[in-house]
Amino acid sequence: MEIYKFGYSIIKEAGSKIRESIGEELQIETKSNPNDLVTNIDKETEERLFKQIHDKYPEHHILGEEGHGKDIKDTNGVLWIIDPIDGTLNFVHQQENFAISIGIFIDGEKYAGFVYDVMNDKLYHALAGQGAWLNDQALKPLEHTELKKSLISTNPLWLTKEKLYPIYAPIVDQSRSTRAYGSAALDFANVAKGITSAYLTMRLQPWDFAGGLVIVEEVGAIVTNQLGEPLNILEANSILIGNKAIHDEILNQYFLPHRALLSEIHSDRFRGKS
Amino acid sequence: MEIYKFGYSIIKEAGSKIRESIGEELQIETKSNPNDLVTNIDKETEERLFKQIHDKYPEHHILGEEGHGKDIKDTNGVLWIIDPIDGTLNFVHQQENFAISIGIFIDGEKYAGFVYDVMNDKLYHALAGQGAWLNDQALKPLEHTELKKSLISTNPLWLTKEKLYPIYAPIVDQSRSTRAYGSAALDFANVAKGITSAYLTMRLQPWDFAGGLVIVEEVGAIVTNQLGEPLNILEANSILIGNKAIHDEILNQYFLPHRALLSEIHSDRFRGKS
Repeated sequence: MEIYKFGYSIIKEAGSKIRESIGEELQIETKSNPNDLVTNIDKETEERLFKQIHDKYPEHHILGEEGHGKDIKDTNGVLWIIDPIDGTLNFVHQQENFAISIGIFIDGEKYAGFVYDVMNDKLYHALAGQGAWLNDQALKPLEHTELKKSLISTNPLWLTKEKLYPIYAPIVDQSRSTRAYGSAALDFANVAKGITSAYLTMRLQPWDFAGGLVIVEEVGAIVTNQLGEPLNILEANSILIGNKAIHDEILNQYFLPHRALLSEIHSDRFRGKS
Repeated sequence: MEIYKFGYSIIKEAGSKIRESIGEELQIETKSNPNDLVTNIDKETEERLFKQIHDKYPEHHILGEEGHGKDIKDTNGVLWIIDPIDGTLNFVHQQENFAISIGIFIDGEKYAGFVYDVMNDKLYHALAGQGAWLNDQALKPLEHTELKKSLISTNPLWLTKEKLYPIYAPIVDQSRSTRAYGSAALDFANVAKGITSAYLTMRLQPWDFAGGLVIVEEVGAIVTNQLGEPLNILEANSILIGNKAIHDEILNQYFLPHRALLSEIHSDRFRGKS
């Protein structure tokens, strides 16, 4: 409980610092491609969180998007997985609709999750086995829904990929409607809150989903990759989350019939061949 | 100015009433298809706005989504175009991310526009020729941007349509990233605020765009259909809005090369054949 409270306090403080910085000129660099941006605020936020955790718990392990913990090979001990700004494109272009995400695992087991919608001051948080909250309000168990009566979230970009189109287009077409918000962590939070019933995407890194994973599972969401397997919290994964009914429906009717193709795409993407 | 102030006051009041109703059980009906919903709140809100306008200005004309003014054939006099809840699916599923929209035209000329993001209490409003505001804050003239460095908004559904895929997929692919928010009126407001740089969709009714049209044009956005023609405010239109640079780029590089196909689709859709 002490670690949970500490996580709560440092993510709130980090959000407060980011809000103070809004309006200042950003230093923006590109990473893997021209649309993969990082700013001085991403780096400063990760550095501050790293230092705070390391000062208090020097024996804990810390994996962060902006460079910390790249040598971590196992989940022994207490592991913090941090995304200082999830939805960096939104942060740069909108100055809103981004989140700080923190997941905490102990010997590989879920312990706590935090997703902080900074500009709206909405902190989604969960303590494994104890429930999930939006600020002080407990989140309710998810209702079971079917795809044709559900809003889902996925990015239109997947429909532009020749191999993925036959898989993704029927899901979008059969959903009641599809949304795209631009922050994976907030997509998890939205499923936890019931704003959307499912979220699917081809590839997330551990820092994109670690916080959200703990939160959505506390309200009964099913979290797997697109082959129905548990996520590996130290590696990139494809993602399918949703209430149990819609997760079953999308997995069995839309993804598993393409098992061979999805396995091939996973293997290509996750080994860096494409 | 009196009509503008009156519009401002009744849309704020309507939003306040909707916020009070959140949490009450909705009566939901379907309209043209299973995903085209209307609730008692849509109907009550339009009825209240209609009555308020009619009581104060009995000579004004009023066109509303939920049934008022279907016999209006010209734009003579003062015309109010109202959507009591734009983004009804969001209203039903999310209880947020919807808007009230009002556009006011005098003898066919833009006079005033209002888009009210009800749950966030953010009122976008504009008086033609005088500027646009978000609550009390003036909105700035739009910056010119290119597609590959812009966030745009469009629904993934268009990519599932065989005829549209060759037009829409390259736009999504070339954008920095694509968003889908589920309320056309807020999509206009987002362009006005700079949250997104362009918004494109295949078909909006007058009540979906009338308020937003006046607001975005006040900050320099270009508003046309996808053939580059001005919108007809009494009919359904395809939509392309954006700052001048990205509007030119999308129109000339992506839409006009498909002029024949788009004309055919327009003609099919807008005459109700598909």
